[in-house]
Amino acid sequence: MSTYSPRLNRLIEALRRLPGVGPKSAQRMAFHLLERERDGARQLALAIGEALEGIGRCPSCRMFCEDEACRYCTPERSAGGHLCVVEGPADLVAIEHGTAYRGRYFVLMGRLSPLDGIGPDELGLPRLAALLDEGWVREVIIATNPTVEGEATAYYLAEMAKARGIKVSRIAHGVPMGGELEYVDAGTLAHALSGRTAV
Amino acid sequence: MSTYSPRLNRLIEALRRLPGVGPKSAQRMAFHLLERERDGARQLALAIGEALEGIGRCPSCRMFCEDEACRYCTPERSAGGHLCVVEGPADLVAIEHGTAYRGRYFVLMGRLSPLDGIGPDELGLPRLAALLDEGWVREVIIATNPTVEGEATAYYLAEMAKARGIKVSRIAHGVPMGGELEYVDAGTLAHALSGRTAV
Repeated sequence: MSTYSPRLNRLIEALRRLPGVGPKSAQRMAFHLLERERDGARQLALAIGEALEGIGRCPSCRMFCEDEACRYCTPERSAGGHLCVVEGPADLVAIEHGTAYRGRYFVLMGRLSPLDGIGPDELGLPRLAALLDEGWVREVIIATNPTVEGEATAYYLAEMAKARGIKVSRIAHGVPMGGELEYVDAGTLAHALSGRTAV
Repeated sequence: MSTYSPRLNRLIEALRRLPGVGPKSAQRMAFHLLERERDGARQLALAIGEALEGIGRCPSCRMFCEDEACRYCTPERSAGGHLCVVEGPADLVAIEHGTAYRGRYFVLMGRLSPLDGIGPDELGLPRLAALLDEGWVREVIIATNPTVEGEATAYYLAEMAKARGIKVSRIAHGVPMGGELEYVDAGTLAHALSGRTAV
């Protein structure tokens, strides 16, 4: 006999597919929903259904989008001539939320990783090339993560932009604000030193 | 302009109602479901709907139950004459999963806490009294948590059983297996000493 009854088992298994949720958390969530949050559970099921049905991808920037017109691909945003390339939707949200940048974006939905079968086509780079060919982009800001794959992707993106005579920049990597030199790792410190700016 | 589009916002808000999920985790879950787990998301919505519709409470033990006959209230389980009283469904699962106990249960779905308006009626104690009056219970095993409210609840339960001439026991509290005396807190150590058993 399994520990749970069939429906409870299916609920717990489904919750485990959420990122960062193991068997214990899934059990806790299931019991919580059934015990104290039946209303919240109903809303969650509804919100998932609505989201699956109504949220697609913007054909231009590849960000999640649910309306005809993408909120990140407006003419006002294009006016500055900046295009920021990020790996995922969460990176876009972090930049939009934490900085004053209000230019256009391009979301790769991944990074170049030939071993996993992720090449330029999977990242929509032909679409990015078409975007660069539109002529309004004056600067490509590369904001991929400072990992091996992220750096390789950045190199590839930079070559694409340079081939079209477009200015390319990479966000700075160095000591984080509030960080202490003493506890910063060697790689970050090396980046901080080589990326020093005149004051 | 809010950070998210309306449907995405509703999905993130709904996910935040899960226990232990804050704004960052909820965003990560939502993006994960939309990006890589559309199939899993569909299953989750379905599983929640099924669970809400089909999972109720057993009228006898108050555990979650989805069939006519509760899997924890069988005649075989009653045969031993043991009734284990726990605070919540997770406690029942922990005992069922971790021990060889295969007697009956009673799930309080809480603990006595007059300040929060939780009295004997909210814990279904009249139902427990009726169960004790059925005559087959020979021993009540109290497995509430060793907190202030849990201990008060245990005292109340013990009085109920004693009034009916039924044997009462409390699960042991002491040094956990693999624990070291040096690092065990004073309260636990005091319990361990006063609850010592002859060898």
